[in-house]
Amino acid sequence: MKKTYPPIYYSDYLHLEKLLTSQSTKSDEYGEHAHDELLFIIVHQAYELWFKLIIHELDSVLNMFREDIVDERNIGIAVARLRRVTAIQKLLIEQLNVLETMTPLDFLEFRDFLIPASGFQSVQFRIIENKLGLNIDNRVKLGNKNYYTMVSDEHQKVLIESEKNVSLFDAVDKWLSRIPFLKIDDFDFWEHYKSAVVQIIENEKQIILNNPSFTDEKREKQLKEFENTKDKFEALLDEDKHNDLMKQGLRRLSYTSTLAALFINLYRDEPILHLPFRFLSYLVNVDELFTTWRYKHALMVHRMIGAKVGTGGSSGHHYLMKTAEEHKVFKDLFDLSTYLIPRSSLPELSDEIKIKLGFNYTYKT
Amino acid sequence: MKKTYPPIYYSDYLHLEKLLTSQSTKSDEYGEHAHDELLFIIVHQAYELWFKLIIHELDSVLNMFREDIVDERNIGIAVARLRRVTAIQKLLIEQLNVLETMTPLDFLEFRDFLIPASGFQSVQFRIIENKLGLNIDNRVKLGNKNYYTMVSDEHQKVLIESEKNVSLFDAVDKWLSRIPFLKIDDFDFWEHYKSAVVQIIENEKQIILNNPSFTDEKREKQLKEFENTKDKFEALLDEDKHNDLMKQGLRRLSYTSTLAALFINLYRDEPILHLPFRFLSYLVNVDELFTTWRYKHALMVHRMIGAKVGTGGSSGHHYLMKTAEEHKVFKDLFDLSTYLIPRSSLPELSDEIKIKLGFNYTYKT
Amino acid sequence: MKKTYPPIYYSDYLHLEKLLTSQSTKSDEYGEHAHDELLFIIVHQAYELWFKLIIHELDSVLNMFREDIVDERNIGIAVARLRRVTAIQKLLIEQLNVLETMTPLDFLEFRDFLIPASGFQSVQFRIIENKLGLNIDNRVKLGNKNYYTMVSDEHQKVLIESEKNVSLFDAVDKWLSRIPFLKIDDFDFWEHYKSAVVQIIENEKQIILNNPSFTDEKREKQLKEFENTKDKFEALLDEDKHNDLMKQGLRRLSYTSTLAALFINLYRDEPILHLPFRFLSYLVNVDELFTTWRYKHALMVHRMIGAKVGTGGSSGHHYLMKTAEEHKVFKDLFDLSTYLIPRSSLPELSDEIKIKLGFNYTYKT
Amino acid sequence: MKKTYPPIYYSDYLHLEKLLTSQSTKSDEYGEHAHDELLFIIVHQAYELWFKLIIHELDSVLNMFREDIVDERNIGIAVARLRRVTAIQKLLIEQLNVLETMTPLDFLEFRDFLIPASGFQSVQFRIIENKLGLNIDNRVKLGNKNYYTMVSDEHQKVLIESEKNVSLFDAVDKWLSRIPFLKIDDFDFWEHYKSAVVQIIENEKQIILNNPSFTDEKREKQLKEFENTKDKFEALLDEDKHNDLMKQGLRRLSYTSTLAALFINLYRDEPILHLPFRFLSYLVNVDELFTTWRYKHALMVHRMIGAKVGTGGSSGHHYLMKTAEEHKVFKDLFDLSTYLIPRSSLPELSDEIKIKLGFNYTYKT
Repeated sequence: MKKTYPPIYYSDYLHLEKLLTSQSTKSDEYGEHAHDELLFIIVHQAYELWFKLIIHELDSVLNMFREDIVDERNIGIAVARLRRVTAIQKLLIEQLNVLETMTPLDFLEFRDFLIPASGFQSVQFRIIENKLGLNIDNRVKLGNKNYYTMVSDEHQKVLIESEKNVSLFDAVDKWLSRIPFLKIDDFDFWEHYKSAVVQIIENEKQIILNNPSFTDEKREKQLKEFENTKDKFEALLDEDKHNDLMKQGLRRLSYTSTLAALFINLYRDEPILHLPFRFLSYLVNVDELFTTWRYKHALMVHRMIGAKVGTGGSSGHHYLMKTAEEHKVFKDLFDLSTYLIPRSSLPELSDEIKIKLGFNYTYKT
Repeated sequence: MKKTYPPIYYSDYLHLEKLLTSQSTKSDEYGEHAHDELLFIIVHQAYELWFKLIIHELDSVLNMFREDIVDERNIGIAVARLRRVTAIQKLLIEQLNVLETMTPLDFLEFRDFLIPASGFQSVQFRIIENKLGLNIDNRVKLGNKNYYTMVSDEHQKVLIESEKNVSLFDAVDKWLSRIPFLKIDDFDFWEHYKSAVVQIIENEKQIILNNPSFTDEKREKQLKEFENTKDKFEALLDEDKHNDLMKQGLRRLSYTSTLAALFINLYRDEPILHLPFRFLSYLVNVDELFTTWRYKHALMVHRMIGAKVGTGGSSGHHYLMKTAEEHKVFKDLFDLSTYLIPRSSLPELSDEIKIKLGFNYTYKT
Repeated sequence: MKKTYPPIYYSDYLHLEKLLTSQSTKSDEYGEHAHDELLFIIVHQAYELWFKLIIHELDSVLNMFREDIVDERNIGIAVARLRRVTAIQKLLIEQLNVLETMTPLDFLEFRDFLIPASGFQSVQFRIIENKLGLNIDNRVKLGNKNYYTMVSDEHQKVLIESEKNVSLFDAVDKWLSRIPFLKIDDFDFWEHYKSAVVQIIENEKQIILNNPSFTDEKREKQLKEFENTKDKFEALLDEDKHNDLMKQGLRRLSYTSTLAALFINLYRDEPILHLPFRFLSYLVNVDELFTTWRYKHALMVHRMIGAKVGTGGSSGHHYLMKTAEEHKVFKDLFDLSTYLIPRSSLPELSDEIKIKLGFNYTYKT
Repeated sequence: MKKTYPPIYYSDYLHLEKLLTSQSTKSDEYGEHAHDELLFIIVHQAYELWFKLIIHELDSVLNMFREDIVDERNIGIAVARLRRVTAIQKLLIEQLNVLETMTPLDFLEFRDFLIPASGFQSVQFRIIENKLGLNIDNRVKLGNKNYYTMVSDEHQKVLIESEKNVSLFDAVDKWLSRIPFLKIDDFDFWEHYKSAVVQIIENEKQIILNNPSFTDEKREKQLKEFENTKDKFEALLDEDKHNDLMKQGLRRLSYTSTLAALFINLYRDEPILHLPFRFLSYLVNVDELFTTWRYKHALMVHRMIGAKVGTGGSSGHHYLMKTAEEHKVFKDLFDLSTYLIPRSSLPELSDEIKIKLGFNYTYKT
């Protein structure tokens, strides 16, 4: 017989008493009522609620991928949860539209009361960055100091601790490095790929050489840029070169993992690779949406305070602009499309391998 | 010299300690962890935060329009605040996309723990409906009982109290009824309008009679419908007819206010009418966005629980569907477009009146 | 060596000469320039361009599912293409926001020139409905006549032809009916499911009986509604009852296909069922987004013309409202959540079956 | 009696025959069918349709503001049309989501056929930039050549011609410079403003000096940045300094116009300034939305082709990133918030001036 549970009241379940008394406006405290301060508070509180949920979702994905063996059933679940993270991120971006209904003049009415509080002190957002695996060296500095000096001692400890844990980047790197299909049997995939790539590179060069709209000077410059692309391509086929790039900070994902990620991208239509492909795509989506959020946020801050300093004592607009570029975590996955080649140039998989990448049911009978 | 204020810490300012400990999952309490319950809680808490802000904005608009004289400067502010309400409403609609990342199967894992709690118990949302001026008689019933029997005694008192206050509908009705331009000088606007309308009506009839795609039966039916439209048009020019419609519950806005609203819509380009026009438009927008939200919400509930009963013990899907139609507050404004006539048929205002509707600066010099 | 192709010019490639001379405004032709007519034309042309693309995507999915064997690789591709359709649909909905920037008064300036043209004459949209598999009997009538009497003779032929082709609904029904896992070995899934369902039904009943917020009258009514749900549940376990419902037009999907769809929904985390689950979900999404589009469209039409007749000679607003409800194609999939039971009540699959639903690679070694 | 017009057929009115035969896929022409090429074509065609509409709206606004006297009724209309432009721009941004459903691998299947065609060759988009008033000197160069060398001779002529016309920037600059309220009577506004500003500047300095989270080095740097802000503030109160900044290319709006724009921003709640304020805000919105579109477009291009060269022979991603920053037209308006001061510090307007800024009707009686 089904259990029954004590009846629940909406307001109690959601702790509305507590939740809806958590807004205290400084302007009223100081006797200078500013109508828009409540908007300001609630927008930021909504952000923090969503951050809590993002952390919850990332933790569950991390728990799955931290293991030495990732259960295949879990990849689908991980994809669903990352997709949820992106749905939340879209909301974070939309929320800027609500904040933008506050004009700069309205903000000035209570801005001075908030100094030096600032969104840079959001501990949860820092934790999200650390959980994703933001490279400490890439963190844009604020006031030339480490990011955690802005928060209370207690929060500092939390942040420093969070840096030590296995991040999603780490876990994905390990998981990718274990993917087996790269060396199955006498699978000469990379040999075929190499010769396809040589053709592609030659093709790219021809595009540049024959472009009638270039000046000579520009063509020269373009060819130089092209050499960089070529170098990157070659690093893909040469582990030492790859490791060099890693030392220079231009690559972060290990050599094997990079190849695995590329393989997954190229043969995504094989059943067993479908979910891994979606998983990698969502990692890039999460990165891209935070980038977009930071960028739009930067535009809004600029519009709100102009060239003034932020309440946190820094030109928030420049900081946010920079983090939009620099705080991407899965850049290496982002860059993968450089190495994609058309399906028509792609080495055909042998039937034997195809069976291995397929479902049990179909091929057994 | 500018005052300085004690320094503020982000986390204290936003009461994050309190806010971020307001989520307690029943599934964990009962030892049956359901991953998605946190999503469910946070989505609803975010809704309640935004409801609080909507109430804040509506209150400020109400305060302005409750007065016997509405300061012209305040109409611009009221418009800005209603626009903010619509920005929030768009977010409420977007939030459904996050909730939809929970599949029906995931919801079933904790649904039984929540009975009989339900979104119908959101006191703040009821207050919003009352503040806007939802007609008590139009409220869709739940379980054949009055809506406030679903909430605690304490909350019932709050709701009953909120019904008694002047609503935005009431305040707007009064404000419109005071607008002076309808009887300026020997302004024969309504005479001109009447004859223009007679033409329009005749025109509509011709469209129906000459439509080649109608069967006779259909044409008959269409002509009957047309008679209704004609009746409505005529009610606009005949106060008694209008009052009849009010008694039947087909109209709610007073006769004078309806004419004023129409006049504002027709001559919106005159400087003094510009902001009143935008104000009326935003009232309709607010209505329309709640309608959209309810409708999308209904679709989602249907998809989530199918034909099962809701946790609140009712087929939530049907209830929401109905409220989407029935809980509109500013239907009369919505219907105004029935009575619009093309600018080319519009009586030209005399120079004298135009000056009265213009700015001081321009015409004085 | 890679082929090279003749150089292409952007404007030629896109036929911009042709495309950008396809807007001719009636208001200018008649010497009564109406600024907003160009908006009106371009919005509708953009709709038609997107319709063409939706047809292209649906056709490719249909081609895959029309076959007697659906290649597993293709399910992923089909999902991607339906996802694209939903991305386009979101755009169609957004486009209404652009159309709404035209006010009713602005529309009146050229409305009379367009009679009796109307969006109901969009042949491509009708084709989309037919390709999805809109049941002819469910089509909402316009002017009591068949929908294709509104279009030219030539277009009528196209539409009548398109009704005869295999629709996506038909193809999906066949594909589902072939799914093998329902009868694997001595798999007693449905027996287990039945007893779980009996419990669920009992549980639902208790929820109703114990709800303190019900009046007796309401409880009675609710129990009656519950009996319907019970009937539906029982139809799921009894092919004859299901076929009865089909005859009454309350079900359209065959008995076996319904079970298969339910099984896929319940065991979606098994690798081989993951993509079929997403495929079914996207079918529901496509339906739901057209429903939302129609509904928002109806609201907009109402706001634009009020109670007047539409240019097509009908009260477009009511028609669109009705189609939002009635023109859903995959209602049966939508209703599936009625029959979902919590994972905890779900019969555990045997290891043997799990292996069959898994990938080759994992279990072979 | 109302005129009637010849009946119209939907498909003829929209030239669907022409419109829907304007898609010819190169991949099919070359016998290498690529499913996604139709998506690619239609997305770009939709862009071009919307560009046409944007040009239509900008032209109408330009026509109003090019005049020596701008009719007040027209400002409301101009605002509505700019708002429409922003609604379209939001759609342009959304459209990227549809384009993103094409994966890099799918694009590679037809990319080579398109060389050297490229979105950089969109003549209409260049015309939009020129109509808005993009400073020729700020144009980011492509291949070190002038932007119009990328298009056909015929199109070059069109673009060069469009550079010569009065742009929206020019027209707005002139219109602002004529606004009279800055010198009304013995209005000593700027004196009051100056002393308020001196306080603000001092305040900003204190914020920097007292921020406990700064290292000495950082404080130094921040103070230097602050000096820039101070310079800008001072330029606002000193025409010569402003003209210096103009010569350096740091300002583009004339001194008087800058003051007028600031005044409008500060006293937006005065009736006569309300619409001018909204007008200026929408100019900034239009800029900001193109910036966002370019930025998101850049992210997408990066993701699509990685470090490869674009079909137009350039690293499109970098170009778009740069234009996002550099192609803003109304930067000076964007920067205005730097000079805003809280309403509480704002000089109170005299009753006499208030009357001048108000409506005729209210104050006459």
